[in-house]
Amino acid sequence: MAELSRQHGDALPFDRLAIIGIGLIGSSIALAARRFALARRVVLFDISEEVRREAALLGLGDEIASSFAECVRDADVVIICVPVGACGAVAAEIAPHLRQGAIVSDVGSVKSAVIKSVVECLPAHARFVPAHPVAGTENSGPASGFPSLFVNRWCILTPPHGADADAVSRIRAFWEGVGANVEIMSADHHDLVLAVTSHLPHLIAYNIVGTADDLQSVTQSEVIKFSAGGFRDFTRIAASDPTMWRDVFLHNKDAVLEVLARFNEDLSALARAIRWGEGDKLFELFSRTRAIRRGIVSQGQETAEPDFGRRKL
Amino acid sequence: MAELSRQHGDALPFDRLAIIGIGLIGSSIALAARRFALARRVVLFDISEEVRREAALLGLGDEIASSFAECVRDADVVIICVPVGACGAVAAEIAPHLRQGAIVSDVGSVKSAVIKSVVECLPAHARFVPAHPVAGTENSGPASGFPSLFVNRWCILTPPHGADADAVSRIRAFWEGVGANVEIMSADHHDLVLAVTSHLPHLIAYNIVGTADDLQSVTQSEVIKFSAGGFRDFTRIAASDPTMWRDVFLHNKDAVLEVLARFNEDLSALARAIRWGEGDKLFELFSRTRAIRRGIVSQGQETAEPDFGRRKL
Repeated sequence: MAELSRQHGDALPFDRLAIIGIGLIGSSIALAARRFALARRVVLFDISEEVRREAALLGLGDEIASSFAECVRDADVVIICVPVGACGAVAAEIAPHLRQGAIVSDVGSVKSAVIKSVVECLPAHARFVPAHPVAGTENSGPASGFPSLFVNRWCILTPPHGADADAVSRIRAFWEGVGANVEIMSADHHDLVLAVTSHLPHLIAYNIVGTADDLQSVTQSEVIKFSAGGFRDFTRIAASDPTMWRDVFLHNKDAVLEVLARFNEDLSALARAIRWGEGDKLFELFSRTRAIRRGIVSQGQETAEPDFGRRKL
Repeated sequence: MAELSRQHGDALPFDRLAIIGIGLIGSSIALAARRFALARRVVLFDISEEVRREAALLGLGDEIASSFAECVRDADVVIICVPVGACGAVAAEIAPHLRQGAIVSDVGSVKSAVIKSVVECLPAHARFVPAHPVAGTENSGPASGFPSLFVNRWCILTPPHGADADAVSRIRAFWEGVGANVEIMSADHHDLVLAVTSHLPHLIAYNIVGTADDLQSVTQSEVIKFSAGGFRDFTRIAASDPTMWRDVFLHNKDAVLEVLARFNEDLSALARAIRWGEGDKLFELFSRTRAIRRGIVSQGQETAEPDFGRRKL
């Protein structure tokens, strides 16, 4: 990573970086910006006073602002790190206080809806570069961030037609600076790809954990005791931030429902194969899915250690 | 663990332990029996000559037998470690060669069907104690075993009515000796509990990985690249042994289809909430599922480290 930050020479890529929303992503960006020397000054703000206090105690950034206005004033770049349902409201709050030509970006897991809600609130002089770092953990809040969260993860930019090329290239450089690989695609394609690789898995995980919890014939203590048989793998992402995920599903409804319909068709076929004892069909699918994991491991998006290399319990 | 094995004093719990099937579980049992000093002699057999050769090179157990008969002859305990669909055939092979009063056990993830197929093949003098250690990794084969696989995991025994009490208590002592906690329940209840905690999660994981692989609108390379958004968690269990899992679904059909029906009902309700924008319903479920993971972590069945404590990539 040191090499990456050195590319920028003495001039830091950003002068004043404003981060709105101090959760897992906001706090990780603050820590990474300092670790990789990407901004002269990092200022954070969160609408929750308690979160601001916690962030101050944690020493995140150089300054915890006490209002939207104070946070973004004079910032050359503002990164909005709030649940996607709140991005429009945040854009409206900061709009009057943005300096001329300020770059505004975000980290939302949904892009089309966010672009729509943000763009209509921002002043014409602001330069919006929608971004989505595909990284996270099941933890939330200002204490959950860490500076290496984005290392070797992908960050997807979805600049609309006519987006300012300089702003796009500076946001790209920032994400590369924190260790991420950057890919550019359309917002619609992003929303479909993420529906498959992230939104549907979360939906299914939330659902299966809920189903298990509701079964009267199997007690919750049995579910917990015997979870090492597979169930526990699902509980990690089903422990993710409820507000963030409520907003994702509400704002990427069409793509999620479309991918879910495909999932349901496939699941019906699988259930039918079980009911009719079609072992060959099961074996064929189960062999094919092994290969996908190998691909993920070989591309460095997953550990090869059995059991995710879980710390021995 | 040392305390556990010391409880047995100088006399080892088993004299000659025969293990049939040298996969992840068979090899782990062989290694654990040695590590925790639970058998004077460990003999293994596998129908695959290649697997036997590999096991010999790995130095598993004291002896690799060259036939079922040679493996079980004079054994006071035989543990069948093959896919559940093959348990009956193995029982038939070993039946004529079992010594008087030999204890026979297994490790199958399905109990009712296995009991039925094994019991009808064994001679009356053999003492069958069905068992299921709820432990594993996504890897298979003789090289994938390790002696601590069962430490702090649960092993469920499902002795039929009239099972020999001494045999049950010796099998219990064996599993406690390798570090597991033992629970006794009926085979039917086991099959329902495991349908929830293990079989359904595997089915769903296989299905979602298959669905993602089939989508033409999203390339496989995109699925792999952006898998850190949640998808990769599913791929671990979808990389499990295809033969083992084909057999599980075919032999626990009723419980799996019943639990799957519940899962589908819940998923339909969730899809409806998304379609109609019912954010409160989503938030309520997503908050509830967080609590389940906390239970699993606090009971030592899961790590509290974010991302499963995955080795930094």
